[in-house]
Amino acid sequence: MSNPVVVEVWRGDRVESVHRGAGVVCDGNGGVVFAFGDIARPVFPRSAVKPIQALPLVESGAADGFSDKELALACASHSGEPEHVATAAAMLARAGVDEAALACGAHRPLGALAARALARTGGEPGPLHNNCSGKHAGFVCLACAQGLPLAGYETVAHGVQRLVKAALEDVCGERLGDPGVDGCSIPAYALPLTGLARGFAKLATGKGLAPARAAAARRLLGAMAQQPFHVAGTGRFDTQAMTLLQGRAVAKTGAEGVYGAALPDLGYGIAIKIDDGATRAAEVAVAALMDRFLDTPEGFASLVRPRLVNWRGLHVGDLRPAGALADPP
Amino acid sequence: MSNPVVVEVWRGDRVESVHRGAGVVCDGNGGVVFAFGDIARPVFPRSAVKPIQALPLVESGAADGFSDKELALACASHSGEPEHVATAAAMLARAGVDEAALACGAHRPLGALAARALARTGGEPGPLHNNCSGKHAGFVCLACAQGLPLAGYETVAHGVQRLVKAALEDVCGERLGDPGVDGCSIPAYALPLTGLARGFAKLATGKGLAPARAAAARRLLGAMAQQPFHVAGTGRFDTQAMTLLQGRAVAKTGAEGVYGAALPDLGYGIAIKIDDGATRAAEVAVAALMDRFLDTPEGFASLVRPRLVNWRGLHVGDLRPAGALADPP
Repeated sequence: MSNPVVVEVWRGDRVESVHRGAGVVCDGNGGVVFAFGDIARPVFPRSAVKPIQALPLVESGAADGFSDKELALACASHSGEPEHVATAAAMLARAGVDEAALACGAHRPLGALAARALARTGGEPGPLHNNCSGKHAGFVCLACAQGLPLAGYETVAHGVQRLVKAALEDVCGERLGDPGVDGCSIPAYALPLTGLARGFAKLATGKGLAPARAAAARRLLGAMAQQPFHVAGTGRFDTQAMTLLQGRAVAKTGAEGVYGAALPDLGYGIAIKIDDGATRAAEVAVAALMDRFLDTPEGFASLVRPRLVNWRGLHVGDLRPAGALADPP
Repeated sequence: MSNPVVVEVWRGDRVESVHRGAGVVCDGNGGVVFAFGDIARPVFPRSAVKPIQALPLVESGAADGFSDKELALACASHSGEPEHVATAAAMLARAGVDEAALACGAHRPLGALAARALARTGGEPGPLHNNCSGKHAGFVCLACAQGLPLAGYETVAHGVQRLVKAALEDVCGERLGDPGVDGCSIPAYALPLTGLARGFAKLATGKGLAPARAAAARRLLGAMAQQPFHVAGTGRFDTQAMTLLQGRAVAKTGAEGVYGAALPDLGYGIAIKIDDGATRAAEVAVAALMDRFLDTPEGFASLVRPRLVNWRGLHVGDLRPAGALADPP
């Protein structure tokens, strides 16, 4: 059985491409508020679970004194802009180490402007430019604070990853199996979208979490909402959506078409996976769900139904929510 | 009804994402040799039809004396590398004009190396860097040779686009309706995959084409096979596949997950559209079809089943042909 088409790509008066997917909105009690597609099949949440992966850092006290920017960056897939790089370096400095401690690998900045600026200077990207460097810096700070060895902090058997796995299992209410390997080399556990949505609802409400965990969740979501630039970067969806919604939503993208999001005022958690892995469709889908449940400002429409313009700036088409996501009731 | 899954994205021992699509292989008589999914629904072929769009340029005599590199570039979605830019400029010089004549708009080079090299010099991209600049230079040369005005050569009512539309209708055996607008601002006509596959089979065999058109098709496919770097660029699929297959296949990518290809020795034409528009899946699908019908060299396996490596170079997964494309009989 196939998941439904939830996003269409129009060119002129014709649908050029379609994206299928599954998604679910849960409330703080774990009840399903809205759903489409197969929400029981385990999927890799990828970077969408970064706010959950950062819980041990905060609960342990290792992040006491961290700024909102640093906490937001610990939950980020950032664009590698100079401010992101500086914040990641500052986090590492708190642990008395430098980027050589990072096991995430290096890639050119996700942000086109930052990538061009780096190229202009002839510079090569380092681990601090990796979109996951904030998360990894958090892992390093956690290892230091716990007196664990830094070497191998990214591996499945290390104390840091065991704490992270336990937090994922607790918050999402799922027992995790054998992991794959993520882009940044840490274990990537699969879990059903229902678990991911319930996890984000628990982050938003604290319901069913130990007090220290609930407080850490509140602190992390608050930091992301306060510092949306540090969660993504210039022109990126998460930054734009959180800036427009001013704390009424916290959104976190994951590779291969995943979104996790929380709507704190409603106590809702959202999880989405686009079958084909397309980020453009996951963004439209999460925007459509935000638009369904929140009173969104005028500029938000351009996220729900982005215009496609060609190289001369001509309007040639649009992305549009479809099927279950097409029209609010 | 949904098209079948034809490409899977694996991470570890789990399918992370899937791509659905339709495709068809036709012989020189227009007979269907192999097919999957809905091949009757019209789709935008986008840049996959560039070899057909270049026929009037050659038939008219406007390209007499053009090099293979220039003819290949007229059919290309090139990477904007210095050699591509120089070849496009040389084509325009034949018409006595420069890049100001191009209506394709400007974008940063598709090729990452070329984009970084341009950024390093602080340069801004111009129309010659546009991946369609060779096609547009061909249009300009055609307009000049026919004594048509250059202004508006990209518009639907201009003589150049009327010749191009007539060639598409003749070669693909389809009557074309109202167009959308392509990324490079020319009309984008939709047509069924069967028409596109028959078109490529006719390019390969010349069957059913007027002698001058058949000769032009032979000349263009020959130029693409001889100069695969000028059809795409460093590290790009079309260039790699054509280099490995040494004239036994001519492949042309189109945006939003389209491929058109010819297998000249067999007289076959291939057309593919991935529902969600993913290029990664269209490449695997066309590679799987080439592998099914041709005796491919050893290195070709990496195109049929590309490895996914993460930022530290760890092998974390693969793309794999699935369903009808999974295993040759």
